[in-house]
Amino acid sequence: MASKLIAIVAGVGAGTGASVARKFAAAYPVVLLARNPENFKSLAEEINSSGGKAIGISTDVSDSKSVQNAVEIIKKEFGPDVGAAAAIFNASGGFQRKPFLELSEDSFMQSLAVSATGGFLFSQATLPFLLKGVQQKSQHPPSLIFTGATASVKSNAQMSSFSTGKWALRALSQSLAREFGPKGVHVSHAIIDGVIDISRTREWLKELGPEAKLNADGIANDYWYLHTQPVTNFTWELDLRPAVEKW
Amino acid sequence: MASKLIAIVAGVGAGTGASVARKFAAAYPVVLLARNPENFKSLAEEINSSGGKAIGISTDVSDSKSVQNAVEIIKKEFGPDVGAAAAIFNASGGFQRKPFLELSEDSFMQSLAVSATGGFLFSQATLPFLLKGVQQKSQHPPSLIFTGATASVKSNAQMSSFSTGKWALRALSQSLAREFGPKGVHVSHAIIDGVIDISRTREWLKELGPEAKLNADGIANDYWYLHTQPVTNFTWELDLRPAVEKW
Amino acid sequence: MASKLIAIVAGVGAGTGASVARKFAAAYPVVLLARNPENFKSLAEEINSSGGKAIGISTDVSDSKSVQNAVEIIKKEFGPDVGAAAAIFNASGGFQRKPFLELSEDSFMQSLAVSATGGFLFSQATLPFLLKGVQQKSQHPPSLIFTGATASVKSNAQMSSFSTGKWALRALSQSLAREFGPKGVHVSHAIIDGVIDISRTREWLKELGPEAKLNADGIANDYWYLHTQPVTNFTWELDLRPAVEKW
Amino acid sequence: MASKLIAIVAGVGAGTGASVARKFAAAYPVVLLARNPENFKSLAEEINSSGGKAIGISTDVSDSKSVQNAVEIIKKEFGPDVGAAAAIFNASGGFQRKPFLELSEDSFMQSLAVSATGGFLFSQATLPFLLKGVQQKSQHPPSLIFTGATASVKSNAQMSSFSTGKWALRALSQSLAREFGPKGVHVSHAIIDGVIDISRTREWLKELGPEAKLNADGIANDYWYLHTQPVTNFTWELDLRPAVEKW
Repeated sequence: MASKLIAIVAGVGAGTGASVARKFAAAYPVVLLARNPENFKSLAEEINSSGGKAIGISTDVSDSKSVQNAVEIIKKEFGPDVGAAAAIFNASGGFQRKPFLELSEDSFMQSLAVSATGGFLFSQATLPFLLKGVQQKSQHPPSLIFTGATASVKSNAQMSSFSTGKWALRALSQSLAREFGPKGVHVSHAIIDGVIDISRTREWLKELGPEAKLNADGIANDYWYLHTQPVTNFTWELDLRPAVEKW
Repeated sequence: MASKLIAIVAGVGAGTGASVARKFAAAYPVVLLARNPENFKSLAEEINSSGGKAIGISTDVSDSKSVQNAVEIIKKEFGPDVGAAAAIFNASGGFQRKPFLELSEDSFMQSLAVSATGGFLFSQATLPFLLKGVQQKSQHPPSLIFTGATASVKSNAQMSSFSTGKWALRALSQSLAREFGPKGVHVSHAIIDGVIDISRTREWLKELGPEAKLNADGIANDYWYLHTQPVTNFTWELDLRPAVEKW
Repeated sequence: MASKLIAIVAGVGAGTGASVARKFAAAYPVVLLARNPENFKSLAEEINSSGGKAIGISTDVSDSKSVQNAVEIIKKEFGPDVGAAAAIFNASGGFQRKPFLELSEDSFMQSLAVSATGGFLFSQATLPFLLKGVQQKSQHPPSLIFTGATASVKSNAQMSSFSTGKWALRALSQSLAREFGPKGVHVSHAIIDGVIDISRTREWLKELGPEAKLNADGIANDYWYLHTQPVTNFTWELDLRPAVEKW
Repeated sequence: MASKLIAIVAGVGAGTGASVARKFAAAYPVVLLARNPENFKSLAEEINSSGGKAIGISTDVSDSKSVQNAVEIIKKEFGPDVGAAAAIFNASGGFQRKPFLELSEDSFMQSLAVSATGGFLFSQATLPFLLKGVQQKSQHPPSLIFTGATASVKSNAQMSSFSTGKWALRALSQSLAREFGPKGVHVSHAIIDGVIDISRTREWLKELGPEAKLNADGIANDYWYLHTQPVTNFTWELDLRPAVEKW
């Protein structure tokens, strides 16, 4: 692992975040951000014990001080001039599917706090590292990748507490793609349109067969592919869904 | 003015809000919400002195207590069982077009606070009135109309502080249209794609002729038209732009 | 009926076309185009006997000679300099929902012939009349309105023979809106997202109540509203659906 | 090259088609379709002389007999039971950017003939091979990939003769993705949003630097990546543009 560039992954838990972290850890030291240390501890150990390098930082992406603290720790750990090859925003706030008039303000704001505020704070924190990655001539254009969902492009009944945050995050990613593409940073947005196969969803959609759910390692491959696109061929957005998914 | 139903307009100032208020005041008593009383005072006087009825309530739509206070005043003024024929959300937070990394968190959050949080609080506050309007058999289906912008569907470079809020608001409107349409409330979203002709923009686009800007009274007519659509023919979304606009 | 401007409606049959023709006949002499004279005969008689003026011309909009013939008849009837206030393209080719590999080429081309070729030929035939309408200072900006469908924005399995034509027609309308808006012609596209209540659909959706289908006269009102928008406030696209429609 | 599955590429010329053919020829025997044999001759020789296998068939994709003839030749060459691992539709009709009223019908129909009719005929011809590829357990899910353009999602003034065909092709690809995904065929649509760097465009955009144009080999890599996605992680659509492109 010759690279001195790092990868930063927010929203590491079971599923996509962990798979993405493992994938990028094969090429870069990885920084794992999650609110709850339980979500990155064993993953960091796994990566460190298998030849990679990972540090976990307990971070609330919706809190600017917490994000700033993570930046400080990263600089202390990797040096003040460290650049990043990739920053992946995979965090998602909890939300409730319930009649609109029964939603509490707190519950409505939860998803916005993570997706909109968190997306903003994460981008402001990581773009300086990514721009340094450009200067330090990273092998692949430094990438800022956001995880979206079906609710990023469709806002169903009783889903507004989730979709408002996801639409805001998609808007953020599009604006950043237009501003930072010309500066050499590749900003992407992936619409994950289906259930991801993780332990929590093990029993879901069984009737549709073993391939009815998205594979988290597959998503990590897709993100890695986005990361390897050259500056002449940037993808801003792609959708991802199981072949059998109805859409 | 036989109707006992009211219309509630948030975001009353020069331009669309005032035009919409005047238009709906021809049919309903109107409640004018604006943070700054300067924005509704003379308008309320104008409406009251020309045979209509208007009350202004100083309201910060992004603050739940302020919105709740407005609800209390409405009930005191019009009775606890008053229904609404229309609620129009025309509020918009300030925003700055500047390089993303120069945006302060406060500045980024301003537009989200009004468009996302404000849109949520306004909808939760007004939908009960609108549902009462359905019960009270309003002549036209009670309407909840949101003012969008070019930035509701396109997120340009350096515009994320505006577009994130506007995309969130559009998501909210789509979800509410799907949930409350079947309950008889007509939820719409208007994409205002161009400059509105108000005193502040008097000197803009002069080179394109006198018809290069949207007419605010015209927008009010468009909103009124949406309001008069029957339950068999609801429009969720329309765009509005001057004939000469490039898009 | 002081106006010397005419309205031209293609795709007159039961439903939207007839309602639109009646609506515009209250303001303008109308030209009714349909392949089968059965589709305009009684309608023309009805309009003529109730104080309006209508002529029907048997026209295949997908056949350039047939469309050219209609143009000649219009000029003979109304004079070579007649202008148009409105042209409405409501034609739709038949299509079959069946497995893609079972579609014959003829069947696939049928919808494209009407929607794509027909939309093109109708636009080329009517725009000169509409531009004359601009010169002759029609009261409302001359309007070219296209009827779209759910399939104009969503292309479901086994629906490609319909959706390809509808997407092509939507593309045509958007391009024409951009080219002819600055010349004073208002080009619109209406997404009709639901079943229209006509004799053929009388028994459909009964379980959802009497308001589960779009009202054809309501659509005519919507088109008329589009027609009355001033040049400062043009709508290119709106959607229309029953309040209870799932979408 | 152990595989007995083939790849079929329509629209082989300078640029994307040739790059795609070379890329897929590293894994599969390739069939090159182009109207003009000049467009595939030297490419076929190049592939055959460097260890791959390629045959060229002079084909007009908008002509069902010509497409049927290509199918017969493929079966004769590779056996009646041959399956396909990939079919790539890269054909595009000529078009003219000119005022709408100056377009001839022939000129308008040219792009539709290739994109809409051609897309349909190519899909009907190749899907049976792709479904055989599924049965024959191809290593990667058999892929049907369509090349789109900026004009697939935006229909500019004076561009309708191009955009109508491209929107129709996009509709076709979405419908096929929904119908054939569950059958194991991966249908994708790539929005090529920029100028591709080929000899004809050598002098274009020079002022924006050497990376202002899409790289055709890069597009071939992108298509290959789509081809390698597993059935749990299908992308229907992605966009591709140079980092410096304004959009």
